Amino acid sequence: MLDPTPARTCTRADLDLIDGYWRAANYLSVGQIYLLDNPLLREPLRAEHVKRRLLGHWGTTPGLNLLYAHMNRVIKERDLNALYVTGPGHGGPGLVANAYLERTYSEVYPAVSRDEEGMRALFRQFSFPGGIPSHVAPETPGSIHEGGELGYALVHAYGAAFDNPDLLVLCVVGDGEAETGPLAASWHSNKFLNPVTDGAVLPVLHLNGYKIANPAVLARIPQDELAALMRGYGYAPHFVTGDDPADVHRQLAATLDVVLDKIAAIQDDARRARTDGASRGAATPTPRAAWPMIVLRTPKGWTGPKQVDGVQIEGTWRAHQVPLTATRTDIGHREQLERWMRSYRPEELFDATGQLVPQLQALAPAGNRRMSANPHANGGRLLRDLVMPDFRDYAVPIDRPATGSSSATGVLGGFLRDVIIRNPDRFRLMGPDETASNRLSAVFDTTDRAWDAATLPGDDHLAPDGRVMEVLSEHLCQGWLEGYLLTGRHGVFNCYEAFIHIVDSMVNQHAKWLKTTRSIPWRAPIASLNYLLTSHVWRQDNNGFSHQDPGFIDHVINKKAEIVRVYLPPDSNTLLSVADHCLRSRDYINVIVAGKQPALTYLTMDEAIDHCTRGLGVWPWAGTTDGEPDVVLACAGDIPTLETLAAADLLRSCLPDLKVRVINVVDLMRLQPETEHPHGLPDREFDALFTSDKPVIFAFHGYPALVHRLTYRRTNHPNLHVRGYKEEGTTTTPFDMVMLNDLDRFHLVIDVIDRVPSLGSRAAVLRQRMAERRLAARAHTRQHGEDDPAITGWTWPAR
Amino acid sequence: MLDPTPARTCTRADLDLIDGYWRAANYLSVGQIYLLDNPLLREPLRAEHVKRRLLGHWGTTPGLNLLYAHMNRVIKERDLNALYVTGPGHGGPGLVANAYLERTYSEVYPAVSRDEEGMRALFRQFSFPGGIPSHVAPETPGSIHEGGELGYALVHAYGAAFDNPDLLVLCVVGDGEAETGPLAASWHSNKFLNPVTDGAVLPVLHLNGYKIANPAVLARIPQDELAALMRGYGYAPHFVTGDDPADVHRQLAATLDVVLDKIAAIQDDARRARTDGASRGAATPTPRAAWPMIVLRTPKGWTGPKQVDGVQIEGTWRAHQVPLTATRTDIGHREQLERWMRSYRPEELFDATGQLVPQLQALAPAGNRRMSANPHANGGRLLRDLVMPDFRDYAVPIDRPATGSSSATGVLGGFLRDVIIRNPDRFRLMGPDETASNRLSAVFDTTDRAWDAATLPGDDHLAPDGRVMEVLSEHLCQGWLEGYLLTGRHGVFNCYEAFIHIVDSMVNQHAKWLKTTRSIPWRAPIASLNYLLTSHVWRQDNNGFSHQDPGFIDHVINKKAEIVRVYLPPDSNTLLSVADHCLRSRDYINVIVAGKQPALTYLTMDEAIDHCTRGLGVWPWAGTTDGEPDVVLACAGDIPTLETLAAADLLRSCLPDLKVRVINVVDLMRLQPETEHPHGLPDREFDALFTSDKPVIFAFHGYPALVHRLTYRRTNHPNLHVRGYKEEGTTTTPFDMVMLNDLDRFHLVIDVIDRVPSLGSRAAVLRQRMAERRLAARAHTRQHGEDDPAITGWTWPAR
Repeated sequence: MLDPTPARTCTRADLDLIDGYWRAANYLSVGQIYLLDNPLLREPLRAEHVKRRLLGHWGTTPGLNLLYAHMNRVIKERDLNALYVTGPGHGGPGLVANAYLERTYSEVYPAVSRDEEGMRALFRQFSFPGGIPSHVAPETPGSIHEGGELGYALVHAYGAAFDNPDLLVLCVVGDGEAETGPLAASWHSNKFLNPVTDGAVLPVLHLNGYKIANPAVLARIPQDELAALMRGYGYAPHFVTGDDPADVHRQLAATLDVVLDKIAAIQDDARRARTDGASRGAATPTPRAAWPMIVLRTPKGWTGPKQVDGVQIEGTWRAHQVPLTATRTDIGHREQLERWMRSYRPEELFDATGQLVPQLQALAPAGNRRMSANPHANGGRLLRDLVMPDFRDYAVPIDRPATGSSSATGVLGGFLRDVIIRNPDRFRLMGPDETASNRLSAVFDTTDRAWDAATLPGDDHLAPDGRVMEVLSEHLCQGWLEGYLLTGRHGVFNCYEAFIHIVDSMVNQHAKWLKTTRSIPWRAPIASLNYLLTSHVWRQDNNGFSHQDPGFIDHVINKKAEIVRVYLPPDSNTLLSVADHCLRSRDYINVIVAGKQPALTYLTMDEAIDHCTRGLGVWPWAGTTDGEPDVVLACAGDIPTLETLAAADLLRSCLPDLKVRVINVVDLMRLQPETEHPHGLPDREFDALFTSDKPVIFAFHGYPALVHRLTYRRTNHPNLHVRGYKEEGTTTTPFDMVMLNDLDRFHLVIDVIDRVPSLGSRAAVLRQRMAERRLAARAHTRQHGEDDPAITGWTWPAR
Repeated sequence: MLDPTPARTCTRADLDLIDGYWRAANYLSVGQIYLLDNPLLREPLRAEHVKRRLLGHWGTTPGLNLLYAHMNRVIKERDLNALYVTGPGHGGPGLVANAYLERTYSEVYPAVSRDEEGMRALFRQFSFPGGIPSHVAPETPGSIHEGGELGYALVHAYGAAFDNPDLLVLCVVGDGEAETGPLAASWHSNKFLNPVTDGAVLPVLHLNGYKIANPAVLARIPQDELAALMRGYGYAPHFVTGDDPADVHRQLAATLDVVLDKIAAIQDDARRARTDGASRGAATPTPRAAWPMIVLRTPKGWTGPKQVDGVQIEGTWRAHQVPLTATRTDIGHREQLERWMRSYRPEELFDATGQLVPQLQALAPAGNRRMSANPHANGGRLLRDLVMPDFRDYAVPIDRPATGSSSATGVLGGFLRDVIIRNPDRFRLMGPDETASNRLSAVFDTTDRAWDAATLPGDDHLAPDGRVMEVLSEHLCQGWLEGYLLTGRHGVFNCYEAFIHIVDSMVNQHAKWLKTTRSIPWRAPIASLNYLLTSHVWRQDNNGFSHQDPGFIDHVINKKAEIVRVYLPPDSNTLLSVADHCLRSRDYINVIVAGKQPALTYLTMDEAIDHCTRGLGVWPWAGTTDGEPDVVLACAGDIPTLETLAAADLLRSCLPDLKVRVINVVDLMRLQPETEHPHGLPDREFDALFTSDKPVIFAFHGYPALVHRLTYRRTNHPNLHVRGYKEEGTTTTPFDMVMLNDLDRFHLVIDVIDRVPSLGSRAAVLRQRMAERRLAARAHTRQHGEDDPAITGWTWPAR
């Protein structure tokens, strides 16, 4: 498979240099796992030189180091702008070692200096209390990817490459990770990469053969099957296989030259075709190329102990973590460790002061060309603000509240269209084939869906440089966006609300990344991860129960309060205001839940801005008192707001002397105490709004327990009664959906009646009437197959 | 690709029959989407015959119906035991139509009778309030798979095939679904299928070309690339392509004959090899076969309207849902609908009473051979109880509480080993390469890891018929287990706690399935879905922050209370008792969180059984009073229990007159009110335990808010103070982890001091001492890289 005539030939001296650099990285990796002291092995290893707790993953590390060293050569030779994404992120020692060799590590952590003392600190801190994590982590210079939860390396790599036409993203995919679903789907990202305006991804599938205890599937299928798989994924595979370092160095160097030539040729062809086409007045897109990829098959734990206590280690699953486990207590193990470390010939690699010898230093690129210092790996440094249209220009005119209607996401679509127009190189909209379904089609006035596979007549807005990315994989949407954000760009993920749970675990990892970067001074803030969740639980009545789940909010608020924001704008203008705010924010995870169906509008743009700025507030026109109320009706979410207002209208008609206050909540985090969340409302203000002793009927978009969880410390919590989704649903009408979950206006009125003691005999009459209205509504629905227009056509009456 | 000489040739009469059956199913599908009345088109369609809300997905339906009809022929011809898994589950009308044609529908729903009246009911109920959902759903006879959330068809199919050697699972994979991560990984399930003891899966990749608004990736790559992909996945692809029904019928019939012959040959070879080998005293495993699969390329919305209002529909993404949208109001649309329905020539298909004509009825198999009536699709009917060893036999002996130690999952491993021995055909243990890491290695005393790919010397317990299924994909583990359970077997999924979030959304769908089946009388209960979550948040200190997340509990308890159970056994014997209970249960999702590291043991087996039966209770030996306490220390989870007991010990020493009650919670749902959960403790009992006014310091395994969420209605909730995981972590020592999150014993003592007003001046002294102990503990850890043995070696002192 390997092209026999590489474009360049690497000299023996080049290969020796690479080998030396590789040995240096391996030496530093082993040192990190094992040593507290004696970093240059100036004296024989003693027990006290060795850590008590040995934590780290050796198995994948020599392969990671090998690729790093080889990449250094080609970066220098070709002046490449390259990023290194480490799928096997548990191979932390390797990436830290390379950042140290490149001097980047000492630049950002001066205490880990480039001398013996610094090397001692480097070794000691690894997996050590108060030190650094065992994985490639936010603390690791050059990383945008943790790799602790496997599956997302390749999709992150593609996200980084989009709109970075000069960037080469090397992505190491472990053969364990390759078994995950997200990774298996990620290979197809090449159908969404534009060779003209995007950079290149060079995947390296590293077959070291084993996971923790099992062989890896892709390492145990015949090579022709694996080659077919890669060709089927649309790649041209190049195999590098061996366990003799010199031989593998030769193969890998030659292969890298070949594949980089190929990548350059693909890009040149595509870019020339565009330029030529442009000069003739029409671009001629080139057919999708088979991008090269490398299959690197080397032993797990390569160059480590072949056997320990008579059991084979190198080349088996036993090399996954720490090969020698008793180096502090067992002199035999310790001697074997010392032989292992000395096998890298550290005296050739480091000078007397502990510095890498100059001839090896020369292999590494300088400045921003160092993969550990590439600014794309610290995307906040490259982040440019979005050029924002004025969201007020998209305002829906409001004559009187709750009388006109519009599609909130439909209105937002116009705003997003103009964000796209003004930011052609730094904003993408992701969605799993749902952008049109979610009523954001206005974006297609100006852009297309990114698509580099074949097209047919009748296709709808497909083009290689589209700003909208649609694939039927929430994992890919999320991963692409993460990679895009982490390299300093902006975006929104629009998704059916129920299915955003598919990426729960990816959100966890991104939240952890953000939380950690907040305390790393050299990491610059990045754009927030923005979710627009629509086609939500109350309006998936057509697809039914499987599409109904509002629990993502519950999931995200377990993350650190300083990271998470949740917004439930009730109408179009509030959605515009919230979206503008989120797009300008940094380092957050913003969850916006909004409706797509035509729905009542409530607030003028000025009112909406004011309301969203406060995050929650009284809607005086909807209530019946400016003073102390008898009951508070609170709501969050578009459908609960509608039902609450209709209930308020019913109460106004039926119980005109009942003093009702209506509160709408946009920023859900306002409900928490200020000690729990930066947006938390002070208790005094909360009590002023929700009273300290009146019944509060809270109609909520999601699971009711969430509101209790946020408010249990509040004074009036004992009087708080929450209605929301209680996991009842099917294919039925919108109003039947709210009735199934007791969130409908009639039930809210009943809830009020049941909790306001002063109503006397009127209560029983009204309760009976409301119960009859519910029965009648259901009967109408069952008979006609649609809701009673007398209900669904409700607007706020002129009085 | 299609073999030109199929083993059998289908006659023209056969094909006509299949075509007629297909037309009947298509007719009934369209009728369900559109009609309220006039089901046999006895009169011209009028507005009132048509539904007002048109909901359903036509696009995929003709393809589903085509496969169903063709399967019917081969089932009858070969007496196949076949199951039909519908990846595009939104094609509900098709599967309902076929169940109706096979009479199964009327058997389970007598109101939908086999006559004109029944057909009217069939049409009306579809996507109609009070009727049935629009998708293939639990309500659909013959289904084990909803398909609303795409991605899990193929993994469910494999799960169904395991240990069902006579079963053939036809699995339709939509080309949209094929883009998802879980589906992309599922193809590799063939490396885990044993042709001797498992059944066969026949995947049909249905390329109808489009998703909701986009083309599908696999429909837009060259056919040789797609063929390579399938060969790379280990399959032999067979292509059936066309838009002329007669031609496609011929191709598909011939292809089905070929692939079924191939499947039979693969199974015969493997099974004969085993029999031959057995007779010679050694089995000779055959090399992994390339199982056949079919790529079926037909137009989306095939046989539906070619154009509507001048716009092409058939063969485009516009055919996804309802092709004619205004059939009630637009006479042109209505006439087109009528022409469309009459194009199936219903008068040839149904007799005057509305029954399928006998010659078409003859195509369908009978009894349990009908795919809609296959008992495997109603797995509870086939469910046989596990033969259970007596869990008491595995008890860890307890001399005094909190003095000895053992690995809870290690002990459980012995029990599971014997469950496996006694149930060789109906129990599997799933895990993403973590079974050994999770200390369940005792199972390998008796079984292996299922593995049908190549093996090498040094591999650890791999065999085609292994009962342990390990792959580095939580999605596959979950999906295989779901398929296995839904077809009437048993299993446990053991997983790192943090990464079980990867399957959050799959859990949602399974919970919804279980919830729905509870109200379907003909669905028999299935075995519960059992999670063993270990390597948990408090003991992932080696991998660090990315591996630390206890939020899965929060996720599952949003599901219906009657479905969800959560257990936090604090030691080995309680884990045994809980596991035995869960393995015997039905229709639940049981989440067990338990430690794998050696940890203190507390309860004798009799005490453990009693404690687990109550679900929570006082541990009198740990407290200092039998009467009313001054403070309650509550705990749930192994590490919080340890810290709580150590805190109780400190309080006993330092404040001997403080009356302390210690409560341990195993069954988390006991904390909820009985109105919220079937396990909920009555308020009276809760108050008796937790008092109505004393401070309660609750040390919890997970996020603290969860305990508040469960208890906010309890009398003493205002005095409840919860410590748990607050999203702080890294690579550090176990005790540093609890300190980072203020869950450590010293901090618990400080929490007591801060909340018991009567301590006077002793409080300040003791608080100071505890703060110093924390500082000393941290200093020791930072200096030595391990915890202070004086802390970690703590046991309950003899007094």
